Order: sequence, then C-alpha cells, then structure tokens
Amino acid sequence: MIIVIQCKDQVGLVANITNVLAKEQLNIISLREYVDTAENLFFMRLEIEEAADTLMLENKLKAVLPADVILHINPLPLKKVVVMVTKEYHCLTDILTRNFFNTLGASVQCVIGNHPDLQNICERFGMPFSLVSHEDKSKDEFEQQIAEIIQPYEPDYIVLAKFMRILSPQFVAKYPMRIINIHHSFLPAFVGANPYRQAYERGVKLIGATAHFVSNELDEGPIIAQQINPVNHSFTVADMVKAGKEIETAVLAKALKLVFEDRVFVYNNKTVVFE
Amino acid sequence: MIIVIQCKDQVGLVANITNVLAKEQLNIISLREYVDTAENLFFMRLEIEEAADTLMLENKLKAVLPADVILHINPLPLKKVVVMVTKEYHCLTDILTRNFFNTLGASVQCVIGNHPDLQNICERFGMPFSLVSHEDKSKDEFEQQIAEIIQPYEPDYIVLAKFMRILSPQFVAKYPMRIINIHHSFLPAFVGANPYRQAYERGVKLIGATAHFVSNELDEGPIIAQQINPVNHSFTVADMVKAGKEIETAVLAKALKLVFEDRVFVYNNKTVVFE
Amino acid sequence: MIIVIQCKDQVGLVANITNVLAKEQLNIISLREYVDTAENLFFMRLEIEEAADTLMLENKLKAVLPADVILHINPLPLKKVVVMVTKEYHCLTDILTRNFFNTLGASVQCVIGNHPDLQNICERFGMPFSLVSHEDKSKDEFEQQIAEIIQPYEPDYIVLAKFMRILSPQFVAKYPMRIINIHHSFLPAFVGANPYRQAYERGVKLIGATAHFVSNELDEGPIIAQQINPVNHSFTVADMVKAGKEIETAVLAKALKLVFEDRVFVYNNKTVVFE
Amino acid sequence: MIIVIQCKDQVGLVANITNVLAKEQLNIISLREYVDTAENLFFMRLEIEEAADTLMLENKLKAVLPADVILHINPLPLKKVVVMVTKEYHCLTDILTRNFFNTLGASVQCVIGNHPDLQNICERFGMPFSLVSHEDKSKDEFEQQIAEIIQPYEPDYIVLAKFMRILSPQFVAKYPMRIINIHHSFLPAFVGANPYRQAYERGVKLIGATAHFVSNELDEGPIIAQQINPVNHSFTVADMVKAGKEIETAVLAKALKLVFEDRVFVYNNKTVVFE
Repeated sequence: MIIVIQCKDQVGLVANITNVLAKEQLNIISLREYVDTAENLFFMRLEIEEAADTLMLENKLKAVLPADVILHINPLPLKKVVVMVTKEYHCLTDILTRNFFNTLGASVQCVIGNHPDLQNICERFGMPFSLVSHEDKSKDEFEQQIAEIIQPYEPDYIVLAKFMRILSPQFVAKYPMRIINIHHSFLPAFVGANPYRQAYERGVKLIGATAHFVSNELDEGPIIAQQINPVNHSFTVADMVKAGKEIETAVLAKALKLVFEDRVFVYNNKTVVFE
Repeated sequence: MIIVIQCKDQVGLVANITNVLAKEQLNIISLREYVDTAENLFFMRLEIEEAADTLMLENKLKAVLPADVILHINPLPLKKVVVMVTKEYHCLTDILTRNFFNTLGASVQCVIGNHPDLQNICERFGMPFSLVSHEDKSKDEFEQQIAEIIQPYEPDYIVLAKFMRILSPQFVAKYPMRIINIHHSFLPAFVGANPYRQAYERGVKLIGATAHFVSNELDEGPIIAQQINPVNHSFTVADMVKAGKEIETAVLAKALKLVFEDRVFVYNNKTVVFE
Repeated sequence: MIIVIQCKDQVGLVANITNVLAKEQLNIISLREYVDTAENLFFMRLEIEEAADTLMLENKLKAVLPADVILHINPLPLKKVVVMVTKEYHCLTDILTRNFFNTLGASVQCVIGNHPDLQNICERFGMPFSLVSHEDKSKDEFEQQIAEIIQPYEPDYIVLAKFMRILSPQFVAKYPMRIINIHHSFLPAFVGANPYRQAYERGVKLIGATAHFVSNELDEGPIIAQQINPVNHSFTVADMVKAGKEIETAVLAKALKLVFEDRVFVYNNKTVVFE
Repeated sequence: MIIVIQCKDQVGLVANITNVLAKEQLNIISLREYVDTAENLFFMRLEIEEAADTLMLENKLKAVLPADVILHINPLPLKKVVVMVTKEYHCLTDILTRNFFNTLGASVQCVIGNHPDLQNICERFGMPFSLVSHEDKSKDEFEQQIAEIIQPYEPDYIVLAKFMRILSPQFVAKYPMRIINIHHSFLPAFVGANPYRQAYERGVKLIGATAHFVSNELDEGPIIAQQINPVNHSFTVADMVKAGKEIETAVLAKALKLVFEDRVFVYNNKTVVFE
C-alpha cells in the first residue's frame, strides 16, 4: 500500500505520521521524505507492507496533519488513462503494448486521434479509437468534442502521446496536472516547433526529450523526466527525428511509470520525484 | 546534521526515532529509509536542519532502538583518509586536487606507495608520501610496515587508489569495511588480472569500473558504485586502459563522495546506497 | 547504395576500390574503413550517392581486390527475417511494431514459438505464427521441425527474441553468423541461467544486456551491442528482470538496426561495427 | 601519421588521395570520410601506419585536390596551448595534471588568470602563471595585455578553462576557431549568465555542459562536445553547480582530446567530429 503526503512542513510531522501507522501495526518498508526548506513544504511517500482500511487510515492521518494536506492512499484501482495522438505511432504502440500485457501500471480506456492514421493499430489491440478531426471547426468545438469523449471514462490522466495540437487554457484547466505530454526536445532548449531542425542547425551533439505536465504556458509545465541521446554531424534532420523518437518513447514510458506509481509530486511548476 | 541507523526491523521504528527528534524540536529535512524485508533489516539516513547535542541524541535514540543498532550521528569532524597507490596517477591526483581545494569531503592524511613514482606529485601538493617497497621482504613484513605508518593517523577509511598489491586477510581484517578499492572492470566480469586484455579479446562494447569495499575474497567485496564507457573495435588494449582510467577516476570519486556523506550501508556483502 | 568489403589488408586497397567508383562517376558520401593491423585485416563500408549496376560493380571491384574478399553490394531487397520466441513479449512486440510501420529495416517473414503465449499478439499484427513445442520430442526433432518452417523463407537472419532453448551446434552451423540473440546480462558477466538473480546476489549497481551472434559456445558469440541500466539496493530480482527487459528491448533494436544497415563485420569472434 | 583534409566535394577525391598514398607504399590503417551533400563539402581523416616526408606528401596531395583545400599532415610537434582561467580550479587542475603526466596530447605553455586564486596551484605544477586583472582598465587594454603574453608562445589553441570574462570580437578574430570554451550548460538551453539558477528554477532533470569554439556571438560558436548528468528535486543551485563542475571537467577533457587528435573539422558554425 502506498501513501503520499504533501503539506506545509512543521516539526514532528514524520513522527505524527509514523505513530499512526505504528499504532495500526503497519510496517513501513520504504519511506522517502523531502522538505523544500525555502518553501517550507513537506513531501512523503510511504510503502506499507500490509493492506489496511483506507478510510480509517485517511481519517487518522488527517487528524495529525495540517489542514491543507494532499493525501492519497493507494492502491486505488489501476489508474485510468485516455491517450491522445495525431499520426506518429511510436509512443502509442509502446503504451498499447504495455497495456495489452498488463505491465503499464494503468488501464488505457480509449485513444483519441485528430487523424485516422492510428485507428488501425488501435483496433488490432482491441482499443476503442475516436477520430476527432480539428478541421472545419473552431478550437473550442474541437476541444468540446474531445472533452465529451473523455468525460464518461473519468480518467486519472490524459496522455498526449505525440498529439500535435496545442490545447487551450480552458481545456487544460479541466485536468490540472493530469495531462502528461512528451515534448520532442531537451527543454528548455528548442521550445516550440521543429526542435530537430533547430538542433540540426545549431549542430548539437545531444538531442533529448522531455515528459512534462501540461500547464497553460506552451512547453512550460513541470518536468517529470528527461533523457538524451548522442548525435553527430552525420545526422540529417530526418535521422535526428528518428533517433528522437526512440528517446521520446523511452522518456514517456519512464514518466508514466513514475506517475502511475505515485512517485511524482508537483509544486511551483516543478516536480519532486521519488525514483 | 546527519544520522544513520542500521538495525533489525520492527514495527514502529520510524515513529520511535522521529518522536525523539520531534521532542527535541529538530526538523527533518531529508529522510531515506529502506527495509530489506527478506532479511528483516532496517536502514535509515536522516538529515536534520539544526545542530544538536550528539551525545544526548545518541542516548535518547538508543533507548528506543534495538540493542544491536549501528548508529552514527554526524558531522563528526571531517573523515580522515589514508591513500595507497602504486604507479598510476589518475585516481590519486583527482583525490589530491579535491583535498587541496577542500571539496573532497574528507581530509587526506598521507599517501603510501609501494613505488616511488608518485612521490613527486604528492610533494607538490604538500602531502606526506611514504615509500614502502614490497621487494625483498615478506608480505607480512610489507603489510606490517604499512600498518605502522597508518596507525598514528587513525584513519576512518583507507583508499586503494590503484594500489596493485593484494592485501592479506589479516591486513583487511584490521579495517573491516573501511578499505575502499577501485577495480578496473565492471565486476563480476573480468575478475582478476588484465581485465582490459580480457575485455579486448572478448570484443565487448562497454568497459567499466567498480568501486567496492575490500573483503577477504579478491574483488568480491560489497560494491559501492559502478560505471561504464562505450568502446569499439578500434580500441587497442592500450586504448581500453586509457579509457578505463577515465571511468576509474570518475567512479572512485563518486564512491568516495557517497561514503564520506554517510550514504552507504553494508550488509550481506552488499550495500544500501541512499544517493 | 551501400558497399561492404572485408579482406586481407594490402597497400593501395582504398585507392583500388575508390578508383573503380571514380571511373563510374560514383560519388562516395560516407566511408568507414578500419584495419586490424595485428590480424592484417581490412574492413570498409561505403555509401554511394547514386545507384549503379550491382553486378558490373561487383565484377570490377573483385578484379582489384584479394581473392578471398567478402563483398556485398546493397540495397539488396529488404533483409528477410524469421523471429523465434518463447513467452516473453517485450522484444517481439518491438520488432512487430517496427515491422508493421516499415521502420525495422527488414521484413519479418514469420514468428516461431515453442510456447503458444505469443500467438495472439502475432495474429493481431497479421504475422504468421508457428508453434513448435519442444516437449515430447528429441532436440533433434525439435530443431528439424523449426528448420523446415524456416527454410522456405530463406531468411537473411534469424532473431532469437527471448527464445529460451539452447540451439545445437548442428542447427547453429546452418546459419553461421546469421542468428542474432539477446542475452539478459552484460556479457561476460553472468553467463548462463538466472543472470538477474546472480546480479541481485552480487549486489551490482548496473545491469546490462548483450546482443550477439550465436556461435557454438553458449553466450560466447561475437558481441554486436551492449547497454546497461543503473539499479540499486531497492531492486528485487523481479525489479531487475523488469528493468532488464527495457534494456533487452533497446539493445536488440539497436543491434538489428546496425546489422540491417550493413554496419557489422565479424571476425575472430569479434565484430567491427561502423556506427 | 594523421592527415586531415577539408575541401569542396567532387567525384574521385578519395581515389585521388589514396592513389598518392598507395604510390608511396603508405598503408592506411584508419580512414574516416564524410560528405555534407547539401553543402557539397568533403571531410577526411586518415591514419597512416608509416611515417613519411610531410612536405613531399603535402605537395603530392595538393596536386590532386581542389585549390581551396585545408590540408594538415601530422604529427606536428605536440600542439601548444595557453590556458585562461578566473577562479574555479576544476578544469584547470585536470589540464595541469594531464599536462604534467604527458597524457594531454598537447603542451601547456602558460596559464593566464584575471584573478590570483589559481596562481598557487600553477606554481605547484611548475607552470608559468600570469595575472592580468581586468580591473581599472578598459577591455581593450585588458585584452591587449593578454595578447602580449600569449603572442611569444604562438599557441595552436587557447583554452578558456572557466575564464569568466567575455572576449571582444577583436580578440576572438585573432584566433579564429582556435579558442575553446567550456560553457556551463547544455547549449542552447540557458544561454548566458547563471545557467544553474535557470536550470534550478525550471526544475530540469538533467544538467549539461558544452565545449565549443568561440565565435563572435556569445555562446554561439561551433559545438565540439556535450554531456549531461541527471539531477533531481533535492539539488539546490549550489548542488547543481557542484554536479555541473564534474561534467564541465569531463566534457572539456573530451573536447580537448578530440581537437588535439585532429578529429574536429569546422564549417557553417558546426563541427564534424570523427570520434
């Protein structure tokens, strides 16, 4: 069982929390704690050997924690996820495969694409695919249609697996810190469009990818994970794109694992990640 | 202030420990805890914001911990270190430089070499160098001489920075889990002599280095840190040795940092490392 | 167009080869050459901008090269591949996905499994799957059946994508340096069974995987690619297996890319890889 | 013996070059060639087994190469280097150590500092140190003084090993593509001052360093090498600076090795690097 706690820091918090667990004879097998002393914020992730009554535990813990605490006690049932895509397959197929073999740590409910390219592969995995074209309609209508598809699934997270439209602040606001995007560069280098062309022209020796939560600012949300791959002079832009896809797949997979295992906390547009 | 605790696991340990700290109004800013459930062993590293009376704290903590606990409360004064070398300079100069600029996290007391090659560089850093040749004497006499030089310094750790003689179990037993060696391979591949020639002949694509505590079995002590570097067909054995020296330097530096910051626990010929 | 040449070294080889190309007005856009001076062996990979008459070029090149040359002029049609599996999906699905989206650089003809577990996923990709159980038959019969399935496809390579049976020297001899295996360790560490358990017990800080050609000695064939991933004390054997699968998938994908692009030469149980 | 060639591409160049070598009975043991087909530029690095008459070879090669060729035939005597520093020691001591033990691949002539902090360590290595304060004088005067110290050494390269003043275009123009700088970020992320603070505030998960030739645009010169290191939420700005120093040292060492071994070509504000 996993317990995650985020609140204002104060002396004795760890004692308060662990006293509650000790009284219930619950054995802590792994504990990660971090205090941002500048911000006076407390973060903790606990792994408990035994299962316990979640509601009882929540009440007892809340009684000894500050009022504004964010407290989650898991396992919840598997996290529910909706995936949004455009045309590129590499991140989607990685997710579909793990989902199919029950190693994703979450359950994909459906895939929404603004192009039909990835419908076929979804069907092969028996995964519902909804085509919502962005053409011939306003952004507002486009996003309204998407939201209607999403809503009945009540997903914990929405994963943008190479979804190439920019979402409006209104849409993003519906799922605060619950939309995860894979950006095709080592942020904050090469913000915006065509990062691989930018990288090629600058003659960089490493390219990267960044998985982050989506906030209102383009490519400016809290970073969850980043990775890089070496490139060299012989790489064309197309080669960089190809190499980039490998990293994008890997870094999104890593970020999803971290998020689905309740290892990621968000504050001040940054993340605390207990790897 | 850093507190490290290693003992048998039992329910309520974290509560017991953190209650003591809370009563003293000490604020925990970083806490790492791990339980080996198979072995029923508990490991914890705490960082406290404020300084406190070490002895008082030790007594209060021991009162709530199992009898066999290993408990260290730091900062002790800087760890004291003796370095042993043969002819290769790369690990030694890295240590001497950090020591000179006070970024090592420890204080080097002296260097002992079984060859005179590195005396010059030690002198340039104002570092005492003792030459103890292994020639024309028994291993026992050789090690006896070394031990006599070491003893007055009462070092916390002995660092074998490319010391190319095998130490006897008797010598090793004097400093249990306090001798740190850098081995020129990715253990357990290529145990023993000439690992780079072995690597060359096997045609490997990565070479590595391993920093470990020295136990009685050759190259079999608990591993602290390991790193690798890519190599390819164009590397001669000499090229591999050269590339290997870069990794050896880096991995020993990393291991020393971890040990000097009290992040390494040893049990069952393995380490728990709170990076 | 790609030309690969492997032969005894002699003065003037590069001139001889490039003179032939210059006379045909063929422009070399990338050239990698390596000489093993100890073995007096010459390796070259050339990329030519224009397409040319393959047979004509082969004859002209052979006229200026030593008699025992290995000379391949590509593009051949896409390499043909047969994949063999047991129960684990991760390497197979990566191959199937790339094959499906035409980014593998080869064409998978069929999958052969000694267990039925991966039949379903193959069918979803429209990939022929042949079940050849190893039970209730001799190794000889087992391999005979496999060979009969393979033969009509005339594959360039056989990929063991987590195929967990050891193939006999007789079988291996049919496809010299054309069977590619992914081994679940950083060879030569942890040869043989249960490498992750071995790694766990030794307390290593990195785990790895190795893609290699299969020769008669178990896990002793020429290494194509190797990669590692950091692990720590908190990894159980199961966690290591899980982390290992990620590296296995990545390193096999890399090795296949290198092989399918004619970047790998074999000699003396080693490889020359022009990355 | 190493030969490097950079010129306009044309059919038959490799043949022309290798014919010259073959006629002289010179055996090519390693050859790297690359053509930028978009720019129609040809780059080659050859390693020859035997020593040859450099002047004769240069003449014979020039006779078969385009007029505008850049042609270097080495070994020249060891490259001569001047190092410029401010206060930070880490890159300097790495260079001084390798220089002292003759493993740098170049010969450091002197160190110039605009602060006295590193005079002591230079003296310990018997290395001439010139203090040129930037205070109480114009940039022009400051750089004039530096240039006067540099001139008699006629260095092949000037290494800015954490030299924290921006050099004027006039100064840079004196040493085109011969000044090598280590920049404390993964360019083009975090151009300019305080990259580690920027990195901290953005919450990145990797920090990097970039070695590049200095051109007139700040931090915009051709990149030679880049590396990264993982960081996490627990890193303060000071921790990032500390971790950054390790990468800075490593990446500058790597870049210098590449440059000193004649593996780096420059064009269009980019580099071709034959690693």
